[in-house]
Amino acid sequence: MTTIETPLSTFELLESEVRSYCRGWPVVFDQARGSHLWSEDGRRYLDFFAGAGSLNYGHNNPVLKRALLDYLERDGVTHGLDMATTAKRAFLESFHDLVLKPRDLPYKVMFPGPTGTNAVESALKLARKAKGRESVVSFTNAFHGMTLGSLAVTGNAFKRAGAGIPLVHGTPMPFDDYLDGQVPDFLWFERLLADTGSGLNHPAAVIVETVQGEGGINVARPEWLRGLAALCARHDMLLIVDDIQMGCGRTGSFFSFEEAGITPDIVTVSKSISGYGLPMALTLFRPELDLWEPGEHNGTFRGNNPAFVTATAALHAYWADQETELRTRRLGELVEQRLLALCAEHTGTSCRGRGLVWGVEFEDPARASEVCARAFERGLLLETSGPEGEVVKLLPALTVSEAELDEGLDILDRAVRASD
Amino acid sequence: MTTIETPLSTFELLESEVRSYCRGWPVVFDQARGSHLWSEDGRRYLDFFAGAGSLNYGHNNPVLKRALLDYLERDGVTHGLDMATTAKRAFLESFHDLVLKPRDLPYKVMFPGPTGTNAVESALKLARKAKGRESVVSFTNAFHGMTLGSLAVTGNAFKRAGAGIPLVHGTPMPFDDYLDGQVPDFLWFERLLADTGSGLNHPAAVIVETVQGEGGINVARPEWLRGLAALCARHDMLLIVDDIQMGCGRTGSFFSFEEAGITPDIVTVSKSISGYGLPMALTLFRPELDLWEPGEHNGTFRGNNPAFVTATAALHAYWADQETELRTRRLGELVEQRLLALCAEHTGTSCRGRGLVWGVEFEDPARASEVCARAFERGLLLETSGPEGEVVKLLPALTVSEAELDEGLDILDRAVRASD
Amino acid sequence: MTTIETPLSTFELLESEVRSYCRGWPVVFDQARGSHLWSEDGRRYLDFFAGAGSLNYGHNNPVLKRALLDYLERDGVTHGLDMATTAKRAFLESFHDLVLKPRDLPYKVMFPGPTGTNAVESALKLARKAKGRESVVSFTNAFHGMTLGSLAVTGNAFKRAGAGIPLVHGTPMPFDDYLDGQVPDFLWFERLLADTGSGLNHPAAVIVETVQGEGGINVARPEWLRGLAALCARHDMLLIVDDIQMGCGRTGSFFSFEEAGITPDIVTVSKSISGYGLPMALTLFRPELDLWEPGEHNGTFRGNNPAFVTATAALHAYWADQETELRTRRLGELVEQRLLALCAEHTGTSCRGRGLVWGVEFEDPARASEVCARAFERGLLLETSGPEGEVVKLLPALTVSEAELDEGLDILDRAVRASD
Amino acid sequence: MTTIETPLSTFELLESEVRSYCRGWPVVFDQARGSHLWSEDGRRYLDFFAGAGSLNYGHNNPVLKRALLDYLERDGVTHGLDMATTAKRAFLESFHDLVLKPRDLPYKVMFPGPTGTNAVESALKLARKAKGRESVVSFTNAFHGMTLGSLAVTGNAFKRAGAGIPLVHGTPMPFDDYLDGQVPDFLWFERLLADTGSGLNHPAAVIVETVQGEGGINVARPEWLRGLAALCARHDMLLIVDDIQMGCGRTGSFFSFEEAGITPDIVTVSKSISGYGLPMALTLFRPELDLWEPGEHNGTFRGNNPAFVTATAALHAYWADQETELRTRRLGELVEQRLLALCAEHTGTSCRGRGLVWGVEFEDPARASEVCARAFERGLLLETSGPEGEVVKLLPALTVSEAELDEGLDILDRAVRASD
Repeated sequence: MTTIETPLSTFELLESEVRSYCRGWPVVFDQARGSHLWSEDGRRYLDFFAGAGSLNYGHNNPVLKRALLDYLERDGVTHGLDMATTAKRAFLESFHDLVLKPRDLPYKVMFPGPTGTNAVESALKLARKAKGRESVVSFTNAFHGMTLGSLAVTGNAFKRAGAGIPLVHGTPMPFDDYLDGQVPDFLWFERLLADTGSGLNHPAAVIVETVQGEGGINVARPEWLRGLAALCARHDMLLIVDDIQMGCGRTGSFFSFEEAGITPDIVTVSKSISGYGLPMALTLFRPELDLWEPGEHNGTFRGNNPAFVTATAALHAYWADQETELRTRRLGELVEQRLLALCAEHTGTSCRGRGLVWGVEFEDPARASEVCARAFERGLLLETSGPEGEVVKLLPALTVSEAELDEGLDILDRAVRASD
Repeated sequence: MTTIETPLSTFELLESEVRSYCRGWPVVFDQARGSHLWSEDGRRYLDFFAGAGSLNYGHNNPVLKRALLDYLERDGVTHGLDMATTAKRAFLESFHDLVLKPRDLPYKVMFPGPTGTNAVESALKLARKAKGRESVVSFTNAFHGMTLGSLAVTGNAFKRAGAGIPLVHGTPMPFDDYLDGQVPDFLWFERLLADTGSGLNHPAAVIVETVQGEGGINVARPEWLRGLAALCARHDMLLIVDDIQMGCGRTGSFFSFEEAGITPDIVTVSKSISGYGLPMALTLFRPELDLWEPGEHNGTFRGNNPAFVTATAALHAYWADQETELRTRRLGELVEQRLLALCAEHTGTSCRGRGLVWGVEFEDPARASEVCARAFERGLLLETSGPEGEVVKLLPALTVSEAELDEGLDILDRAVRASD
Repeated sequence: MTTIETPLSTFELLESEVRSYCRGWPVVFDQARGSHLWSEDGRRYLDFFAGAGSLNYGHNNPVLKRALLDYLERDGVTHGLDMATTAKRAFLESFHDLVLKPRDLPYKVMFPGPTGTNAVESALKLARKAKGRESVVSFTNAFHGMTLGSLAVTGNAFKRAGAGIPLVHGTPMPFDDYLDGQVPDFLWFERLLADTGSGLNHPAAVIVETVQGEGGINVARPEWLRGLAALCARHDMLLIVDDIQMGCGRTGSFFSFEEAGITPDIVTVSKSISGYGLPMALTLFRPELDLWEPGEHNGTFRGNNPAFVTATAALHAYWADQETELRTRRLGELVEQRLLALCAEHTGTSCRGRGLVWGVEFEDPARASEVCARAFERGLLLETSGPEGEVVKLLPALTVSEAELDEGLDILDRAVRASD
Repeated sequence: MTTIETPLSTFELLESEVRSYCRGWPVVFDQARGSHLWSEDGRRYLDFFAGAGSLNYGHNNPVLKRALLDYLERDGVTHGLDMATTAKRAFLESFHDLVLKPRDLPYKVMFPGPTGTNAVESALKLARKAKGRESVVSFTNAFHGMTLGSLAVTGNAFKRAGAGIPLVHGTPMPFDDYLDGQVPDFLWFERLLADTGSGLNHPAAVIVETVQGEGGINVARPEWLRGLAALCARHDMLLIVDDIQMGCGRTGSFFSFEEAGITPDIVTVSKSISGYGLPMALTLFRPELDLWEPGEHNGTFRGNNPAFVTATAALHAYWADQETELRTRRLGELVEQRLLALCAEHTGTSCRGRGLVWGVEFEDPARASEVCARAFERGLLLETSGPEGEVVKLLPALTVSEAELDEGLDILDRAVRASD
């Protein structure tokens, strides 16, 4: 390799054009700790992206790191398929004792493969099998993954087009407040279900995010979620909550649907479940839905034991008491105040969020990407979301300090001001 | 959790019925090194399964382990999405210098998400996009993954049924020797392609494994693979080699298709690419096929940097010279001799394989699972494959010692004898 | 056949259970003239069903009959595929001179096969070809036919289930007033189209009936149709009006969309186009959409020349001037007055219609079928429609006399009264 | 219409480009009797096409004509939906007494709409409903119709492309002798069915023509049909024989499958069933398959009573004894001798057929269309078939005289000679 001349030229030469984040953040990162990343030239970046929600406990969290190093050093099983291992048992027991039991959630746990889309695909398969129907309802601006099953219930037209085949068996319904309060909740959806002449194939399930992360930080109200759960019950559809980005404490409670007081039939979990950014995913479902035959769904890396180890450590460190939830809510309020002030100051902006997931929407989408670019120059990692990239998304680690939060929000302030 | 009474009861109580391997090997594994696993009660197992081909360099390979611990200790970036990182650059350069360049392979590298099925889904998307057609041809007894796109080109009826929707856009063709030599290679396939009245939707691509692992260790001859490549060229179809299980040296050469002297248009790689059993996958393709828009396919864990670190270490340790390839071939010959002798001794058995992937087929499928059960009792991990589970599959680590190989084959001998 | 004992037993023994109308009208019909049918036992029935809209000029209309007999007697070509014939030329010229030209409609004429569903299937094919997209939007309670393409855009769940495969590529939108005026027209539809994150596959076309016959006599307002046409234009979707049941003067004007002042891109015509109840259908489209290759769509009976002969005679007899349109409107007003009076008298009823297609809806669907049964006893043929069969449908011949109209409405009055 | 200048200009101006036969036969036909058509300029044409098999008893057959005129004159019901009528009863009884009962065929009769594709669509629906599976196997070069369900089991790539959506749920298998005798019958098909890992979705049904008319006059041997029936029985698939073109005596016996001694589960009939070229179709099936709910499949013109009248007359005139069958076989032998002589004389030609359906294949497809063009100049109507139009198809009326047969074959001789 004699042609490499700049830090990024290796990537430009050898890696596919599909790469994306490295274009907005054109540096080579080398190290990371807590809420910071360092590029190889030693520059420090404050991270308000957190691995798209995979690093709720920060980069290389020292408690999890210690557990991981110990496990690796003593040659604990690394690759375990779905063999029983001590690491998996510890995770299952901790997850049961610290998460499911205290919340009175009856779920069986499935390891569907270590990525979010594996979890979504397994959830859809199970729902279709349980109900004997093909159709699934998703919501406008939903994001559930990039494999064909998940992509068919994802909203983004650009990503859908990548399928190369017509995506079918999914029908979009309006997410909460999609029609700006002009239409009563579920008026259209329930009418279609109740009318045998409507032309809607009766859905096996509904899949929903409580807060749409990729879709633009669209926050469903608890009463809307309760309405949806009731609708599903009335019309014999399973309710799948995709909690991949919003679970593991991102909105305050461990599961993002707790506030609404609902119990989905199926829940998908991934991203921050390992706590350390290691690939891991879960599909949770009511025991009566555990209709799988052995091996009916599988995957080579569904037993990523190092991830089980850090996941177990994270549960004990952060979910043995209420502390994480309370702190997240408190920090969330700080963010809210700062963003409300910011939006009050700048026309063409608005904000919304829950816990530690927030979005600032710009009427002019170009401004959102300009803000991210200016923030990067000032050492802050921020990303856009929404169908036109019109929303600047704030996703700091839950372990962020108040000082770091202030620092990041100060940079955001300046970046927005500069874009006026 | 006061109800736990046996080592496995946690799994029985909390985990989904979909779990599979833990049923045939009902112990709780705790540690692993090289070709061995230890259960928590201290029993040692010789591993001839190697994580379904994900552990070609053995469990917790010390060279890779050292690199991984160093990286974790110094807080290298763990979770990197598709950001540029030093770990990723090192991998890309090593992969280019040690794998692609010496073999004169022109591929661009895509990180499609860390599992095999992510790689397959991205390969299918890209092929469909490139050709503007939906249809893909796969082969009898193919296995390509469990998400909807991959499952549609997978043969197993039980796994296909799990989709819950009709799987379409794929058409099976006979794998090499499927019709027992009664039919000239590709007679049917080419006739369908050449005849505009055949009813076959012209395929965008053909996806093939050079040796079908899950399908029963079916070995395609080099001339058949060359014939297939030529057929694809004649009829404007892309050739995708799924080298997830057979790549990374399993058959001797780094890629399993090297022996045939073909250059597929797209190659999927996963399982042993990280070398340490960590989730990682690649999609490789000719540069002219790099038609992706930035972010058109993505995935949260596509930048699993610890895996890049062990992958880089594995390339340097095992692929800087010819040693691994030569040793694998030599050991493969030893296995072949032993299995030929075994089959000569036992009626109703036959064997086949390449490099260090071998299968012993039993006319009576029940006998294959009995052999695996008996081998387990004697401390050897073996799995069945094939549509009826009629093939005992041997997939030792490439780093297995001759003594370990002999030990395992001795146990196999005894297990087969006991099943007579 | 010695087992036949009742007039209907032949049908019960030999014909499939799929038969339907003969169950509600359990007599064997023998002759028919104008608005009357006679059963073999000599009983006379007043027909307010008109062959589901296929007999707008009455049964065995004498003018058409004369033309047909003459043609048959002189051995005019009967079966013509798509050969040029004198009968076809006469029809094409008459249709151009009397229908298209006076209305300034630019359409090319296609003979897609002699049934409505042939016309719909060809319209959908053409729209998909023209736009290069698969998706089509239809409306709640639409009916377009029973072959797979047409059925996928039909609303009725019972009929859809008959497909035996999941019906895809169609998405239902709310028909005019479907949500009882609670939602602005097209709010949801346009939002989905405008939002690239909505998850709606961009449709090639929209297919609509101006009055939904099978769906329950749901009448679209002219302004709604204009809004739909404008929406299609704004979002590059073709507008297909399925005028199979409502065309040929049923609503007054020859095409039912004339009142709205729109020019659909594609129009399907069948049922009453031959005028004599003979199978015939047309697909009309803007010349720039005439993208067919010769023979790309075909059908054995697309050249049903006797139907061309009666169609030509019907055009000359009924569409050479304004008379038919004016008379239909006038009779429609009579029907409206009578039905308004009827509904004022009976709680749980309401009515709606246009021209000579009217529906009386009963809150209790059982009452609608009771009314039809009682009307049949009194010698009037009436059918129900709507998803629950809750609407009694009035579809008299356009040639019905005022006395016959009164007689039928009197019977209806009595039947409704009896069902109170 | 002042722009009309030539006999065909009306068609060129007003009719869609989809028109096809009128391009090869650029005259305007006016009258027809028996085996002859007359163009409006008085020229006579001998018809060896017979409405693509719809006119087995010749044009405007006088016996059928008399029955039709009588029926029309006395105002028999013309348009009957699925009401019981005296004309329908007479047909059902005649069909039972003259066709089903003597052949010991147990079928229920369904009127699925008056075209072949209606019959095929209903057959596929019923098979899928009965078996609860979506997949259907068809054969290379099959033709079953142009609506989406039928098109998905049709082979021709040009016609398939017209669908505008990917056609799925169908898989082609090799028709008899497709692989030139190199492969045992059903080797591939049965292997796929028997192997649970083959990737073939288990089919609900197999649909087959005994002689492929559009596909190039490919004749299945009786033993192949028997093998297929046995295969279907072994693997729980319904056997559908599409007898639309080859039924009603075309091959000698009333049904084309009688010679093979099989009883298909479902049979589709259309084209010549009315005998007079009027639209009519039947779907026949074993009584235990009569799983339809009333109205689950319907169609406006399924009760085309004039067609029932001519159909009844045709059954009595031609199927009350063995005469038609014996005569067809005898004439078929004459044709065979003439064609064998023809092919012996001309290199690059071969012939095949059964009864009165014959094909002459030309190695050079251009020659086939040249032969048809030259035949037309000499007053003989002939069409090509086969994927490349390489087969000249002979489909004279069964009522053709020997002199007419000779005349036509003489013209063919000259046309072939002229093309040498």
